[in-house]
Parts: sequence; C-alpha cells; structure tokens
Amino acid sequence: MEQQEAVKQALALVSRAQIAMLGTNGNDGYPHVKAMINVEHEDLNTVWFITNTSSRRTTQLLRDPRACVYFVDFDQWMGLMLVGEVEVLQDAESKQRLWREGFEKYYPLGVTDPDYSVFRFRAHWGNFYHALSNVTFEI
Amino acid sequence: MEQQEAVKQALALVSRAQIAMLGTNGNDGYPHVKAMINVEHEDLNTVWFITNTSSRRTTQLLRDPRACVYFVDFDQWMGLMLVGEVEVLQDAESKQRLWREGFEKYYPLGVTDPDYSVFRFRAHWGNFYHALSNVTFEI
Repeated sequence: MEQQEAVKQALALVSRAQIAMLGTNGNDGYPHVKAMINVEHEDLNTVWFITNTSSRRTTQLLRDPRACVYFVDFDQWMGLMLVGEVEVLQDAESKQRLWREGFEKYYPLGVTDPDYSVFRFRAHWGNFYHALSNVTFEI
Repeated sequence: MEQQEAVKQALALVSRAQIAMLGTNGNDGYPHVKAMINVEHEDLNTVWFITNTSSRRTTQLLRDPRACVYFVDFDQWMGLMLVGEVEVLQDAESKQRLWREGFEKYYPLGVTDPDYSVFRFRAHWGNFYHALSNVTFEI
C-alpha cells in the first residue's frame, strides 16, 4: 500500500466513523483510553471532540497534552492511529462550532454550560493498517 | 449504578466484544492504541491476545508493560477500561491455548510460528460507564 492510498483510505475511515478512541497518559503512568463522539475533523490534521470540563480526561490533558486518536473498522480489518497533542478549549467560538442538536442531554445549560469544553487534537504523524499492510506517515 | 451491577454489565460487555483496544506507553512518550481480537478472558482479571512477535506493540510492552484494555459498545453508550500490565509469552502451552482455527492466515507456520506470541494482560482496576453513570472498582 502506497502512502497516498493509505492517507485516502484513512480519511474515508475518519469521515464515516461514529466514534474515536482517545488515548491519554494517565496520572498513574499508565495509558488510558476512552471512546469519544467523532464530531468534526479537518483532513487528518485536526480532530475535535466535546467533553466534560470536570472529567478525569480533561484534568489529564491539562497536565500532559500528549495523546493519540484511534479509528477502527473491524469488519474491514482497518485501523488508523493519529499521534499528537490535545488543547482544552473553552472559548465561545469553539464551543459554538462543535455544538450539535441533542447535546443538551450531556450539557443541560446549553452551549454556555461551564461543564462543556472542547478538545482540539492536532496530529504529528499517523499509522494506517488495512489487512496485513501497514503505512506510517507524517502529517 | 452499584459496583456489583457495574461488574456484571462489564463482564457481559467483555464476553460479547469482538475486539478490544490495547493502550500502551509508546517509546516516544505518547500513548498508543491498537485494536486487538478479543480471544479469551478470565472474569475481569485476565485478558489474552495474540500478536506478532516482530510488532511495535511487542517491543513497547517488553520495555514498559503498563497497559490498558478498553471495550466499547457505542450503541448502548457503554465502555470499560481495565488498567494493568501485559506479559509477552512465547511458551508452547500459552500459544496452544490461544490458537484458533483460521489463525494460519496471520501465522503461516502455525502454532509454533516464531512470529506468533501471546499477550497476557492482568488488570488492577477498572472503570465502567453506562449512559451518564460511572463506576471505578479494584480487581
């Protein structure tokens, strides 16, 4: 698999995925993983998530922003890991940008809910595999 | 949600999951994640995987065995993170124990293929969430 083809397939995977796994460095020195709603992305550079300001994940990422975002399509034996950093954002513009209908069930106070924050993840590199083929690329 | 109910639902999730996400500490200081086939488990204590001896994951875990294993059922908004350590095993008994029909496509030389290894993950604690409820428990 050539790099160009890997990036094309990886982008298609990100576009159709409902969720992504967010990997973080836990405070205990162990890696932690959590499923996040795949709300929005820009190419493979940036992936946006919503989160609870009060969550363990937010505290971890304010201490250590290093993270990975993983997308998987098990039926096609396909996976993409993006590695980079997360910024925790609480500005009105970012919160408005990510807000979707129905998010009131998570944040009852709406888009200005102080417990509603945004994660902006920016990738440095990625690894895409499909079947038994595997490509690593810079972003 | 009480702890007993959380453990019961978590066990049911592990039993029906086809895959699990394995989180590791990458050599670069970043967390890494990869989907693994959910081959076998013992309660919530131990989860077994198969792997390529030559893989990046194996090298990482021999250097730093700290890991997490994450199961998700997005339709039910349910997830389980187990945190513990992975042992990389290559003894004949473990390799025979994990071997399943069809694994020849990954390991052409069969159960004695030197590129076939086993990961035994043992958990110290877990975190289970369902809907907006969240329980952490020791194992």
